[in-house]
Amino acid sequence: MITHSHETAPTQYVQTNGVRFAYRRFGAAGGVPLVFNMHFMGTMDHWDPAVTDGLAKEREVILFDNAGVSSSSGDVPRSVAEMGANAIPFIKALGLKQVDVLGFSLGGLVAQEITLQAPDLVHRLVLVGTGPRSGERMDTGTPEGKQIFGATYENPDDLWLRVHFTPSQASQAAGHRFLTRFRLRTKDRDPEVTEAAAVAQRAAIAEWGAKREHAWDYLKEIKQPTLVVNGSDDVIIDTINSYILQQNLPNAQLIIYPDSAHGSLYQYPELFVRHVSMFLSAADPWAP
Amino acid sequence: MITHSHETAPTQYVQTNGVRFAYRRFGAAGGVPLVFNMHFMGTMDHWDPAVTDGLAKEREVILFDNAGVSSSSGDVPRSVAEMGANAIPFIKALGLKQVDVLGFSLGGLVAQEITLQAPDLVHRLVLVGTGPRSGERMDTGTPEGKQIFGATYENPDDLWLRVHFTPSQASQAAGHRFLTRFRLRTKDRDPEVTEAAAVAQRAAIAEWGAKREHAWDYLKEIKQPTLVVNGSDDVIIDTINSYILQQNLPNAQLIIYPDSAHGSLYQYPELFVRHVSMFLSAADPWAP
Repeated sequence: MITHSHETAPTQYVQTNGVRFAYRRFGAAGGVPLVFNMHFMGTMDHWDPAVTDGLAKEREVILFDNAGVSSSSGDVPRSVAEMGANAIPFIKALGLKQVDVLGFSLGGLVAQEITLQAPDLVHRLVLVGTGPRSGERMDTGTPEGKQIFGATYENPDDLWLRVHFTPSQASQAAGHRFLTRFRLRTKDRDPEVTEAAAVAQRAAIAEWGAKREHAWDYLKEIKQPTLVVNGSDDVIIDTINSYILQQNLPNAQLIIYPDSAHGSLYQYPELFVRHVSMFLSAADPWAP
Repeated sequence: MITHSHETAPTQYVQTNGVRFAYRRFGAAGGVPLVFNMHFMGTMDHWDPAVTDGLAKEREVILFDNAGVSSSSGDVPRSVAEMGANAIPFIKALGLKQVDVLGFSLGGLVAQEITLQAPDLVHRLVLVGTGPRSGERMDTGTPEGKQIFGATYENPDDLWLRVHFTPSQASQAAGHRFLTRFRLRTKDRDPEVTEAAAVAQRAAIAEWGAKREHAWDYLKEIKQPTLVVNGSDDVIIDTINSYILQQNLPNAQLIIYPDSAHGSLYQYPELFVRHVSMFLSAADPWAP
């Protein structure tokens, strides 16, 4: 049997719930697969092969474009709840009864919704660079985030050096290594998300972030073992939101990495892969 | 060569700086030894053998009583700075040029002072259940802490079930397992600390915790790679203080464990040992 990699896995399609979902699936079969949920404006190609291939050594990984994103058909809904409601039939259409779910940024919001709406489907949860409903500075988005996403870049990929990495020399060097890995897959790449898709994603994030009374109570319903990860200096979704997640989830571990920003998993891919593998592989995630 | 364990390592003594220091040293020789700094009212016997023996598999571990504590002579000073100033000649008296330093609670304050006063002596730093100068609720101590330390217990060891563990069934069960391990060493145990020693330790903690302007600026001077660890619900030194340490130290990773309190390292000893081993053993602690 051929085990594909991030670079070689073909884009496949599955039709369900009125949407033709694009996905890629690779890695060591046999255990609980890990489903990756992508950030704002991201496609399957925005994952770091050092992370996906690293995790694929011990498990199947599944990348996909949610409804309306890149190679998938349909429309991007204007709420995170609907994004979760789209992801669930996609996972089930692959014949999977239980998966681990990783969500990064907007994908972390979707991962929470998947877990709330289909608790039996989710084994364990990894939330990276993300936050709770009504998190700090999540209603309007941060001024830093608006400036970074609003600027123009000579090389469009350089946007991600600002989003995912700190201004420090070490972090920017790691960012350039990430951008190299990010372009290693040359064939069968995903098209960029459309402006209409990005507008709907922005609306969904704002709705999620809107201030509410007792906003964090819902986290008590997420009983799955959860690993929360962020960089020390995330200004896209402030780092304190990861602390708030850990403090309000009933069964969560928090890891914060030094001198890093929204994309801490891309800055420290080996460390991130080791932490996530320890968490996902052990019979008891807190007693490996 | 006999490799001793937590249970069998003999108490040894070294005289320096006017103090006869009691210590125990065991584990795999050859690398950078790890020096353990104990909490308020603790002796060498208050460490968890699951932690010390676990870490001793890959490195030498050194337990000791600081000046005036238990089997060591001298007086407990009324400032953390002086405690650090006592620990430094102890480490040098063993002929060591560089060590890793682990500090738990009050020991974490001392570990910071050791690093500030003798930066060349310290390779890497592990800070558990501790906080910065002028940390949240560290000036007067917490009401919860006063209640817990002020109460009387039918079995005196049960104090530690309240200090180190949460009220949850799972955490208390882990606490009882800890208390069993805690009594495995039956011979050559350390005497309990005296009331005079505890009074001086309390004064030192209050002085450390006193509110100051720009209190956290000093953390920028601690450039060593640092691993900060705490439980989710520490009410002896509030968990937020671990977040503050991570946010102000220039090169620190934070790990917070679920449903755990001041003694998270005793609740999850296997996980703690794996995280600390990864951090201490790698050539680059952030790229294992």
